[in-house]
Amino acid sequence: MSLCKLMMRSVLKSLRASTLCRLDHTPSRGVASIIDGKKIAEDIKMEIKAEIDQLTSGGQRQPHLSVVLVGDDPASAVYVRNKINACKRVGINSEAIVKPSATSETELLDTISALNENPGVDGILVQLPVPEHMNERVICNAIHPSKDVDGFHVVNVGRFVQDMDCLMPCTPLGVQQLIIRSGVETFGKNAVVCGRSKNVGMPIAMLLHADGEGDTNAFDATTTLCHRYTPPEQLRRFVQTADIVVTAAGVVNLITADMVKPGCCVIDVGINRIVGPNGKPQIVGDVDFEVRQVAGHITPVPGGVGPMTVAMLMKNTLRAYKKEVNEF
Amino acid sequence: MSLCKLMMRSVLKSLRASTLCRLDHTPSRGVASIIDGKKIAEDIKMEIKAEIDQLTSGGQRQPHLSVVLVGDDPASAVYVRNKINACKRVGINSEAIVKPSATSETELLDTISALNENPGVDGILVQLPVPEHMNERVICNAIHPSKDVDGFHVVNVGRFVQDMDCLMPCTPLGVQQLIIRSGVETFGKNAVVCGRSKNVGMPIAMLLHADGEGDTNAFDATTTLCHRYTPPEQLRRFVQTADIVVTAAGVVNLITADMVKPGCCVIDVGINRIVGPNGKPQIVGDVDFEVRQVAGHITPVPGGVGPMTVAMLMKNTLRAYKKEVNEF
Repeated sequence: MSLCKLMMRSVLKSLRASTLCRLDHTPSRGVASIIDGKKIAEDIKMEIKAEIDQLTSGGQRQPHLSVVLVGDDPASAVYVRNKINACKRVGINSEAIVKPSATSETELLDTISALNENPGVDGILVQLPVPEHMNERVICNAIHPSKDVDGFHVVNVGRFVQDMDCLMPCTPLGVQQLIIRSGVETFGKNAVVCGRSKNVGMPIAMLLHADGEGDTNAFDATTTLCHRYTPPEQLRRFVQTADIVVTAAGVVNLITADMVKPGCCVIDVGINRIVGPNGKPQIVGDVDFEVRQVAGHITPVPGGVGPMTVAMLMKNTLRAYKKEVNEF
Repeated sequence: MSLCKLMMRSVLKSLRASTLCRLDHTPSRGVASIIDGKKIAEDIKMEIKAEIDQLTSGGQRQPHLSVVLVGDDPASAVYVRNKINACKRVGINSEAIVKPSATSETELLDTISALNENPGVDGILVQLPVPEHMNERVICNAIHPSKDVDGFHVVNVGRFVQDMDCLMPCTPLGVQQLIIRSGVETFGKNAVVCGRSKNVGMPIAMLLHADGEGDTNAFDATTTLCHRYTPPEQLRRFVQTADIVVTAAGVVNLITADMVKPGCCVIDVGINRIVGPNGKPQIVGDVDFEVRQVAGHITPVPGGVGPMTVAMLMKNTLRAYKKEVNEF
């Protein structure tokens, strides 16, 4: 990194720290500030739209995202529709390429290869999961890293964990933005991540612990990664002293009010389908509702991390279009 | 992973657990078992030698490692000599390609390219650091991943953090072997790593926390990554409840006897040059000598992790020769 960039970051960091001191973002017990993911995602999309509008009004073509869906899983179809809708909203041209579940891996690879070679396609995304007769890793690695807007290609993963500029996975990016835009301080703080999945928990732990001077703008927090084999009493102990808790475990009520430190920031990435008290299906996260009586900041489910994932996909597509990562 | 492999691992895990119960590897206070890295490294090298002897007596050629050294840094020269000597010891054919520090990056890349294309070369290693006018990342990524016995190529890094078979970095591999061969239990335990470097601290944290069912045979421990911005009192707190402590910080006396949990396992990756009590230069780790009065297992410095790095380089070269990782 250039000396100039280093100096700028250092100035920004001190500015941020001093602003935080003055504003005191941490509310007292009982009034957790709800991190409105829907609104922050909308803000980000509007920033992206403004940038695209400016580029296209200058005569440039629109960015283009191709989304490939194999099979007829209804949840996947909804996710794809949301992505296409978000594209429309921000001015990204998009297409959904829908293939039957019997599609062969070779056929899908051919489709990806054609998209890789098409200079009019900036971003490519294959909606996961793919049918069982396909190797997910082979599919993810077939997308050219420079068009890999999901950030799942092995080269993007490798660059990411080395704090190098890359296309980063969307949900961790969304969590990062929620924390930044809520003014939560992370430098030298204690963070706990619950869940070690390769697309969510692990990369979030990377962003939390790594060097803020690297290309990924990481958080410099001391970070504990808890998972299915962390004994409950140990999970409780780690969470009790955490300033930032990120849950991505898929376990209802994993985190309860008696477990968290007053004033902490809780980011709930969990999506669990339960039967609600009224007998109707309901979507809840990993964090018990009562935690908001103790936490300083908390994301709701739904309306927290969920909308951010799609917003960051738009951001990645814009970055791919602008060829901001050019070292592949 | 195949069901068969899964079942075998599960059986092995229970076997290992039951053996541990019977043997009780954790000594009581005051008698820390010294993990003899020199001996374990020698054992591993002898295993490798036996395997190579068998292969070559069957008519196969010897494995071959090419080590490239640019410039005349005396420490680097020593490291290269140690590697070449280890090769001789285990029956790996080797060469040291020494280039002047004024060598251009293009020239070095040409050398690497020729080694990549040479079917008689199994492993390639460029001794780091390279001179300042070269981009270390470009050099590391120029080595074909299948010959990248240091495990620094972006594709090996990306595969590694996804628990996929790959050529893994040698020092983390060495730490893993020390823990396994000392019979230290890790499953569901608390681990602390001090230091977040990309070649040592971070990959060790990956091995400690990740899924033992993955290709990297990781340890399933709850893992806390501490670093330069972890406040000292927080470091103390995390270390005090850790069953496994790995230090790779380069800070003399970072860990003292009053900080560790009785019976814990302490792996000291630190290498610090100090002036000893007799006025002579001395090499010490990050861990105070007195810790051995409290810990259950501890590595000395020197003679702990150091010899393991070279042993695992031999192992990686053998794996590259046998083309055990064939998915690049």
